[in-house]
Amino acid sequence: MLEGTIVSLAPDETIMAFANALADAARPVAMRYFRAAPEVEIKADQSPVTIADRSVETTLREMIAARFPGHGIVGEESGAQDRNRDHVWVIDPIDGTQSFIVGSPMFGVLIALLYKGRPVLGIIDHPALGQRWLGVHGRPTLLDGRPVRVSACTDLAAARFLTNSPHYYTMPEEPAALASLHAATRFTSYGMECHGFGLVASGYADLIVETGLDIFDYLAAVPVIEGAGGVISDWAGQPLTIDSGRTVLAAGSAVLHAEAAGLLARGAIRPSAEQG
Amino acid sequence: MLEGTIVSLAPDETIMAFANALADAARPVAMRYFRAAPEVEIKADQSPVTIADRSVETTLREMIAARFPGHGIVGEESGAQDRNRDHVWVIDPIDGTQSFIVGSPMFGVLIALLYKGRPVLGIIDHPALGQRWLGVHGRPTLLDGRPVRVSACTDLAAARFLTNSPHYYTMPEEPAALASLHAATRFTSYGMECHGFGLVASGYADLIVETGLDIFDYLAAVPVIEGAGGVISDWAGQPLTIDSGRTVLAAGSAVLHAEAAGLLARGAIRPSAEQG
Repeated sequence: MLEGTIVSLAPDETIMAFANALADAARPVAMRYFRAAPEVEIKADQSPVTIADRSVETTLREMIAARFPGHGIVGEESGAQDRNRDHVWVIDPIDGTQSFIVGSPMFGVLIALLYKGRPVLGIIDHPALGQRWLGVHGRPTLLDGRPVRVSACTDLAAARFLTNSPHYYTMPEEPAALASLHAATRFTSYGMECHGFGLVASGYADLIVETGLDIFDYLAAVPVIEGAGGVISDWAGQPLTIDSGRTVLAAGSAVLHAEAAGLLARGAIRPSAEQG
Repeated sequence: MLEGTIVSLAPDETIMAFANALADAARPVAMRYFRAAPEVEIKADQSPVTIADRSVETTLREMIAARFPGHGIVGEESGAQDRNRDHVWVIDPIDGTQSFIVGSPMFGVLIALLYKGRPVLGIIDHPALGQRWLGVHGRPTLLDGRPVRVSACTDLAAARFLTNSPHYYTMPEEPAALASLHAATRFTSYGMECHGFGLVASGYADLIVETGLDIFDYLAAVPVIEGAGGVISDWAGQPLTIDSGRTVLAAGSAVLHAEAAGLLARGAIRPSAEQG
């Protein structure tokens, strides 16, 4: 009856402990290859992938399959398996592969549990930093066991804005959207990887906008942001689910989220006006 | 006779121990304010500065003045003091202030010792990561006491390229130069702050190019890069000294350094050709 432990949107202590055990298991596997000149191969889509990616994902898949054989698993490396089940785990074994390759500790392991397509538990774990955000539907988000809270910022001009790389803004309207956000906010910091979602959840940054992502890259962030009092959606304001697309917009407050969404919507209809 | 301890370009054990003591002293001061919602004020040049900046710099200035009253000190916060002395300490108390503000552990404390205007000792210390690179003229660079070595990469197309932010490329020809480097290299990672110099010294990344900097931001990196076998200069290939300008180019090999310098020189004379 293990599968009966989730009967609603809110995962219980058993599931939370298991999710933490997954992240605990991933850490030494990732660290075995970090700063150890891992073999690197180039996938068809040109993103680099390391042995660490495959090893972490294999470890997590085996643990999930052994404990919850009825759950689906969607992994960044090995693809989807039973993605239509009620419960689906979505895994990015090494988020921030470029950071991992250049020896930056900002890479993370992302673990999300979905119920009927919506994320109800998320872990952002940083093996090299020894830090972990845990978000669970209906509970306060924890950073290493301590509750965190988003910032009170409601003013775009005062917002500390995070985005990972300008090179992910590849659709025609996206560079203008990024330029608008940069111009409208207090400053823009790049290169935070998934750590950026945690920094918004903890109130150190106010706004994170990303594009060019896959579901593995952001579903774990949803319970983390929401459990800290923040708002997260795609650029159009739609909830993030297993069927979502490439964009994410998260803010510490609904007001800031709406301001940024409005700016993105305006950027999308006049792509060249605000560039350069 | 303490000042007689440096009689040549090569700092001795006494100076190295003192430099490590400076970095040791800076750590708890910086960490007192990290992720603690420090007051932030905006300087005339719009860069954010925190209490941590001033506190770390004051701590280091007091230690230097007490031990080496004949040495000059140039600090990012308090300006220059006796900068024409034979020995001058150049300090960036918090490199990566934006990172510090948003709670990212990539900020660093930079400490350089110059002899007749040229850096002979450099420390890149990361209080939140607990990591320190120490470079000394004529000695192998150490990361936390262990020697490090640059990568063997000599091919720009294979190079892992680091730069902090596209927004620092503000001179007319600089955005084109950045676009050229991004197109010519394997990938571009942003947001590494001074950590990027260490990552090149340790061979995890191959190339770092920066602009919009001041001497506080890069002089400490010179002994770190050179002691690991790398090459560092300004974009024109000139050595970095107390009188240098806003640009830095560091690579793991002379070949890669020359390739990047050539690309930057070409970018500088046709600013619009490679953009977009």
